[in-house]
Amino acid sequence: MSSHHIVREKQEPALIIANGEACSEELLGQLLEWSPYVVVLDHAMHRVLDLGIKVDAWLGDFDQTQDFEYVRERQHPLEIIHTPDQDKTDLEKGIDFLIERGFPAANIVWATGRRADHSITNMTNLVRYKHRIRLVMFDDYSRIFPITDTFEKWYTAGTPLSLIPVGEVQGITTTGLKYNLSSESLTLGYRSGNSNEADKDGFVHIRVQKGDLLLMECQDLP
Amino acid sequence: MSSHHIVREKQEPALIIANGEACSEELLGQLLEWSPYVVVLDHAMHRVLDLGIKVDAWLGDFDQTQDFEYVRERQHPLEIIHTPDQDKTDLEKGIDFLIERGFPAANIVWATGRRADHSITNMTNLVRYKHRIRLVMFDDYSRIFPITDTFEKWYTAGTPLSLIPVGEVQGITTTGLKYNLSSESLTLGYRSGNSNEADKDGFVHIRVQKGDLLLMECQDLP
Repeated sequence: MSSHHIVREKQEPALIIANGEACSEELLGQLLEWSPYVVVLDHAMHRVLDLGIKVDAWLGDFDQTQDFEYVRERQHPLEIIHTPDQDKTDLEKGIDFLIERGFPAANIVWATGRRADHSITNMTNLVRYKHRIRLVMFDDYSRIFPITDTFEKWYTAGTPLSLIPVGEVQGITTTGLKYNLSSESLTLGYRSGNSNEADKDGFVHIRVQKGDLLLMECQDLP
Repeated sequence: MSSHHIVREKQEPALIIANGEACSEELLGQLLEWSPYVVVLDHAMHRVLDLGIKVDAWLGDFDQTQDFEYVRERQHPLEIIHTPDQDKTDLEKGIDFLIERGFPAANIVWATGRRADHSITNMTNLVRYKHRIRLVMFDDYSRIFPITDTFEKWYTAGTPLSLIPVGEVQGITTTGLKYNLSSESLTLGYRSGNSNEADKDGFVHIRVQKGDLLLMECQDLP
């Protein structure tokens, strides 16, 4: 087991590998550096095995036949958790598992792309966890996270920033963006804060009064 | 110009090619068969030129330098429409353009995948047009369309169907699904109808009282 698989009192975020579009090896390598504890969701395991990544926990309803012995031989030790709940997505089960285990944060990868229903559900479900665990979802083009009441971060001028409301979000006030909002509402499907950007090198502030807002740092090229 | 580029009194849907993840050549070929009139959005043009597709209209704010002469030499005749409106996405401009031109329907491709902000905005913006033009968004894994008050379609048993609410949707009643809803609500980020399926060969009915619901027919393998 390599040194970066030692969990140091759960200060680092865990990493959840879901079953959407694979990211670049470079991004995955970075996330593994930051996240010593790795959880893989259901069918993604077979794609992960090919990459030689050390996995700590494997969650799924395993409704399709799984060759557990084959996987165990290649991943040892490995915790296998059977999660048959039909009312939760695999990603929700993974996040709930990490909350139970006391992780304060998790990075999520391979959760976007491919099936549109899984992709939109995975992205938007982040908001329900915003007060319980710090979640960031990554793909080659995007970094996605929910905003709690106030948000502040330093960006270089021109950094693309999209404010995506999950439903209706009221009382959004920003500073430091090219197109600032002043106590305004955004509504998914009707008015979103897509394709905004940091106005200059400096802090961007976002304050939200009511509702669930995702911030997306995206770029056209991976 | 091939015969399938003759518009027959706008009975066929138009095709919008956006700038997300490219689909398979097979899917694109099918869509071109069904859709004689082709609109390409902004930067996607250079990716489309490589494929030898006949384009009828090219829309964009063209904020990056474009070699119009180069494109015109390869696409003739081609209508170029400059759409500088910063408050609309490229896809909204494309749909508005087709509504103005009197098209009753449009298929949309390359609008999902890649940047998460564009992907979620493109999918969810479909709902605002649901009473003005029939829109269907395709990618290799997904077929996405908004449901107006009632929906009925014949599916084979086990066809995966996801009911994705854009915000909160109230009074949803279904028959023919494995997990039916009876005057229930779905809320994006909290409760969605992800990963449902047709219960048997036959009609699926969906009725919605209030709100914007997307139906997604998705599969794991393209």
